[in-house]
Order: sequence, then C-alpha cells, then structure tokens
Amino acid sequence: MKFVLAPDSFKESMSAKTAAFAMKKGIMKVFPEAECVIVPMADGGEGTLESLVSATEGEIIKTDVIGPLGKKVTAEYGLLGDSETAVIEMASASGLQLIKPEDRNPLHTTSYGTGQLIKHALDKGVNRILIGIGGSATNDGGVGMLQALGVSFKDKDGEELPFGGGALKHLHTIDTSGLDERIHNVQIDVACDVNNPLIGPTGASVIFGPQKGATRDMVTILDHNLTHYAKVIKEQLGEDIAFVAGAGAAGGMGAGLLAFLSARLKKGIDLVIEYTRLEEYVKDADFVFTGEGSIDGQTLYGKTPYGVATVAKKYSVPVIAFAGKIGNDIDALYENGFNAIVGILKEVTSLKESLESGESNLAFATENVCRILKINRID
Amino acid sequence: MKFVLAPDSFKESMSAKTAAFAMKKGIMKVFPEAECVIVPMADGGEGTLESLVSATEGEIIKTDVIGPLGKKVTAEYGLLGDSETAVIEMASASGLQLIKPEDRNPLHTTSYGTGQLIKHALDKGVNRILIGIGGSATNDGGVGMLQALGVSFKDKDGEELPFGGGALKHLHTIDTSGLDERIHNVQIDVACDVNNPLIGPTGASVIFGPQKGATRDMVTILDHNLTHYAKVIKEQLGEDIAFVAGAGAAGGMGAGLLAFLSARLKKGIDLVIEYTRLEEYVKDADFVFTGEGSIDGQTLYGKTPYGVATVAKKYSVPVIAFAGKIGNDIDALYENGFNAIVGILKEVTSLKESLESGESNLAFATENVCRILKINRID
Repeated sequence: MKFVLAPDSFKESMSAKTAAFAMKKGIMKVFPEAECVIVPMADGGEGTLESLVSATEGEIIKTDVIGPLGKKVTAEYGLLGDSETAVIEMASASGLQLIKPEDRNPLHTTSYGTGQLIKHALDKGVNRILIGIGGSATNDGGVGMLQALGVSFKDKDGEELPFGGGALKHLHTIDTSGLDERIHNVQIDVACDVNNPLIGPTGASVIFGPQKGATRDMVTILDHNLTHYAKVIKEQLGEDIAFVAGAGAAGGMGAGLLAFLSARLKKGIDLVIEYTRLEEYVKDADFVFTGEGSIDGQTLYGKTPYGVATVAKKYSVPVIAFAGKIGNDIDALYENGFNAIVGILKEVTSLKESLESGESNLAFATENVCRILKINRID
Repeated sequence: MKFVLAPDSFKESMSAKTAAFAMKKGIMKVFPEAECVIVPMADGGEGTLESLVSATEGEIIKTDVIGPLGKKVTAEYGLLGDSETAVIEMASASGLQLIKPEDRNPLHTTSYGTGQLIKHALDKGVNRILIGIGGSATNDGGVGMLQALGVSFKDKDGEELPFGGGALKHLHTIDTSGLDERIHNVQIDVACDVNNPLIGPTGASVIFGPQKGATRDMVTILDHNLTHYAKVIKEQLGEDIAFVAGAGAAGGMGAGLLAFLSARLKKGIDLVIEYTRLEEYVKDADFVFTGEGSIDGQTLYGKTPYGVATVAKKYSVPVIAFAGKIGNDIDALYENGFNAIVGILKEVTSLKESLESGESNLAFATENVCRILKINRID
C-alpha cells in the first residue's frame, strides 16, 4: 500500500515537512508495512521556499542586497537539493515587510534586490529559477530587478534612471546589451496567481498600489508611468505586454519578467507540483493525504490541497485532506477530487494551544482515518 | 447497508436522540440508500431517563412527592413508549440537587419520594421499572422508599420511625405486610455502577456520606445505624445484605432494593443495552456509530460508547465513536471494540460555540467518515 503525503504547511503550527511526517506517524500505527512518500508542498506564496528546500534537502542561502528603499538588507533564497534549481521569494529582497508602513512609497521602491538574488543564483550555476512574487513593495515594472541583471534604462540625457516607479516617466532608451548572458540558459518560472494586466483600471498601480502606500495621486502617476514603460518596451523590444494576463503582478514585475527574461507565468501550485514531481509519485499511489491549516470553499482557488487533489483525480487516486480549521462551502470540494475533509482538533482549546499541538493532533487524525480505511466493509 | 446509531448524549450540547439524527443526516449525504437505526443510549446516570423516553417516544410524568427533607417537591419519571416500563431517577425525588449545601444532612434525609414515584408508576400498570440511583441525598438504607410502598419500620414502642438515616438506630420491628402487592409482579432493575457494600470502611456512609453533608461524627453514627439495620433485616427477613456488592449504593438504597424488592443490580450501561434491545439491532448491522461529549481512557469504565462497542464486537461489527473532546489513553479503546475515534470540532472556538454547533459538527464528521468508508480501496 502506497501513501503520498503532500500537505502544505499548517501556518503558525508546522511546516509542510513536519505535517507530512506527522501523517506518516499516524499511518505507521495502523499500516506498518505501508510505503509513505513525503512530498511537502506549497502554493507559490509564503512558505514555498521553506517547503521546497526542506522537501529536497536543499539549503537556504543568505546574502546582502539593496532593499526596496535603496538600503542594504540581508535577503535569502533557496538552492534545492538538485543544485540546479533556485527558489526566490521577492518579498525577501524587495518586500513590504522590510519597510515601516509610514515609509512605504512605490514612487521610490525598487525591485533591484530581487535581481541581485537572481544574479547570485546564476553564480551558483542553476538552470532553473522559481520566483515567488507575493508581498512586494514595488511598482517599478521590474526595472530595478533588470538593472541588477545588467539592463540599462536611460533618460533622454543618457542618464541611468534612479530607483522607483516614479522615475519611469523619464524612460527614453532601453539597452539590453549588458544583460547577464547566463540568464538565457535558465528557465525562469514565476508563481503568479493573479491575471491583472500591467496598466488600466485593473492594472498593477490601481489594484495593488494602495496596499504599497500609494495615494490616489500616486496611483495616477504610477499607472501613467507604467503605460509609458509599456510603450517604450513595445517600440524598442517589439514586445506588447501592457495587457498580458499577469503582467501587472507585483507592481509590473510580471511585465519585466515576461518582456526581458522570457519567464513563464504560472499558478504557484502548478509550479510547485511540477518542481516536486508530485504527479510521478501520485500516479501509482493508493491514497493521497494532503492538508493545510485552513480549508474552505476558497481552497479551490489555487490552494495547495486543491492542486494536489487535481493531480490525484487524474489518476483516480482517493484524496483525504486534513485541516485545523474547516470553513464554509466545503461541498464544492467533494466535486473536485476531495474524497473527505477531516478536522484534526481533539478538544476545545485556545488557538495557541491548538497550534502547539498541531503535530500530535494531525498524527492522531491520520491514524484514525487509516483505522477507518482498514475497516473496508462496504460491499 | 445498515447503520446502527447509538450515541449517548453530548452533555450540554445535544441529547442522544439529537446526536443520532445528526449522524443520520451525515450518512444520508453519502449513502442515501442506507438503513439507519436510531438507538439513543445512556449509561444509567444523568440523562438516562431523557434518552430512553425520547428513544421510545414515551412520556415524562410529573408528580408531587415528599422531598429529601420532608417538604413537597415536584419530581418526574419516564413512562416508556411500550407503556409497560418506567424509568425513575432517584435524584429527581430524593436528590442532592434539591437541597442547599448548608441544609444537607443525611441523618434526616429520606428516600420516601422515590418510593412515591415507584408507587405512581405501579398505578400506571408498568411491569418493569429501571431505577437510576445517582445523585441521592440520602443515607437511609432505602427505608423511606420502602415506607412509601407500605413497609413499616417500628421502634420498640411500636412507633413508625421518622425520616432519615439517624432514626435507624431505633429500628426494632420490620413489618412487610403492608407492602404494595403489585410490586411482586414488577421487575425492578437498578442501574448501579458501584460495588460498595452497605457498611464498613468501603460502605455507604464512609464513602458517600461526606458528599451528602455528613461530618466525621455523622459518618460514624450512620455506619453504626446501617449495621443495625442490616442485622434486623437478617434476623427478621433472613436476608444477609450487609456485604453484598452494590448494597451500599445511594446511601444503602441498594440494600433496601435488594432485600425487599428482589431488585437486580446491574451496570447502568448493561441495563440500557437491554432496555433498548441494542443487540438485536446490532447483530446484522454493517456499522455501529456511537459517541459521547467526551471520550478517553476512562470510557472503558462503564461509559456508553464502551458498552455499545462491546455488543458490536460480539458480532464483529465495526464501531466508530465520535466525540467533542478526545482525551488521553485512547489506545486502550482500539483493543476493546473501537475501530476508530473521531473528533467532531471543525475549528478553534469557545466552549459555548462548540456546544452550540455540536449537531452540525457531528453531522459533518459523520459525513466525512462515510466518505472515507466509501473509498474502499484497501486491498
């Protein structure tokens, strides 16, 4: 009997890997002969780096980069166990959490540090980079990131543009001749769960600008500047990315990655499934166990358990999902590859206590699911 | 497919019947063709009357009786749906909860009201009476109860003894000639989960006297008096009940029921199993679902789920138990007929909210257990 254990992390309680091992512990009590394949998952958002590094026994690499406001920050990225894949979370180098709320200003913030992380990964000899773009502080169309990689963005006087979305209005000439050549031999995959275009009423500036500190006036400026940026790219690079789905992600980072680095923009969970080779493990499994701290109707919108269930459904492998919190609209899950949803709480406790006992609760719930599977009396 | 749904009540959340119907609701979502037999259970303690009345669609009968301190109280008992069985909880007529803590005094408290309930049930024409003796305020050896049924307990001057365990030292003559004759045609079953003898260091007065308000001196008097009572019974009735297991239950109520009314003392859960004819339903079932508010290692000591599991085990029918709170030492349950123990909580909430959502939580957990049973892929 083969079980694939592919949970996400249970936020604030346990990592995906810890959760998978807790499941294994429960299974072993009932089916000591079972094969358990541990595949810690993530959905491309926060925790993806940690999950993939721990899943592959890779390493976390720390390095100093230029932060979103131009000051030095220590950022990190992951080098997976295959030594050929890097996982970068933009938030680590260019994230909102690096800036005090009162200092947030997307006219000035730059994605430069993220470019430095990419460059650092290139130095490690990787041939594949997964970039998570959640939590960014920037609205610079990825220009800072591209500057770090050697692309030059000049004003009409031939001066390099300073950092920030506010400077883009002066863009006159793009020079890609300095772009780090190694980038052409690397597959860049961007975990992107939004479809927003670069500009316009559903574009980067209007939709995501305010949460990065943009006032109404700044939003107008930023959208105007990105419109100019798209126009220059079209004229000089021949790429029309203004209304490509996802170009507006992370303050136009999507546009920069698409136009200059031939990146693939895909849903985060789909990339994680690809990177973990989940399908390969699932196809001959008897059961797939997944889970996440919280599961509800929204789980169908790109969350890990749904991605896992979709893969399992393809091979008709039953899926049982575990959660610390089960919310509303669960019925839709049963129609989308989930055979059952199981809560792991054993008693009424405080949130703190429940988070602390996540591991033992998950092991217990998994054990009892296995005990039910063992009954096998339905005719 | 046949399910027997035999939960106890989930204390402060839902009655056994409500719990059973919640389970049924969950089952129907997955197995709409299944047969569900509803058998609300109890363990002979608090809630037994309610469970059996609701299970059989019987009625609750209220009547005024003499309370433990000699004052009128309104008590109730159950007449089951067969109209032939009464269920009496001693606590309703002679219970501790009827007396303020400062007024509790087993030298004076009487079981008379319980005898009146028995008499009232005889008037209804029952041929079987289940008596739950938990929560009594008395230490009178059941004398009050017997007086209500026509037995006379006289002192050496031929005067009827007054109420209470304190008067028993004056007992001189027992006259059973006035005992209500109908009692001989009635099976009296006493739900008794203790094995204490009537007297001595593990007897009624020493072990249970203090919780009924007896001081150390009172305990000495009460034990002495019950010793005298046993001696008179032996001399005049030829029954030696002083050290019979259970004679000390409910302040010697056990002794009175044994010596005068030929009662059977049995574990509460065993009587409930008998009265509900649980075994008959279970023997050809595919699954038995049981449950209780809280399940832990102590469940093996006479609690409802254990009784249900024992019956099911006899016929190799798998048992799944549901609980709002799962405590320690659960492993022992798996060796005693329980196939799985399932928590019903869906998220961290207050105790109050969890009690209020018991019904929907139990239905959800039951549904998902059925979904797991439906997978049926273990080879």
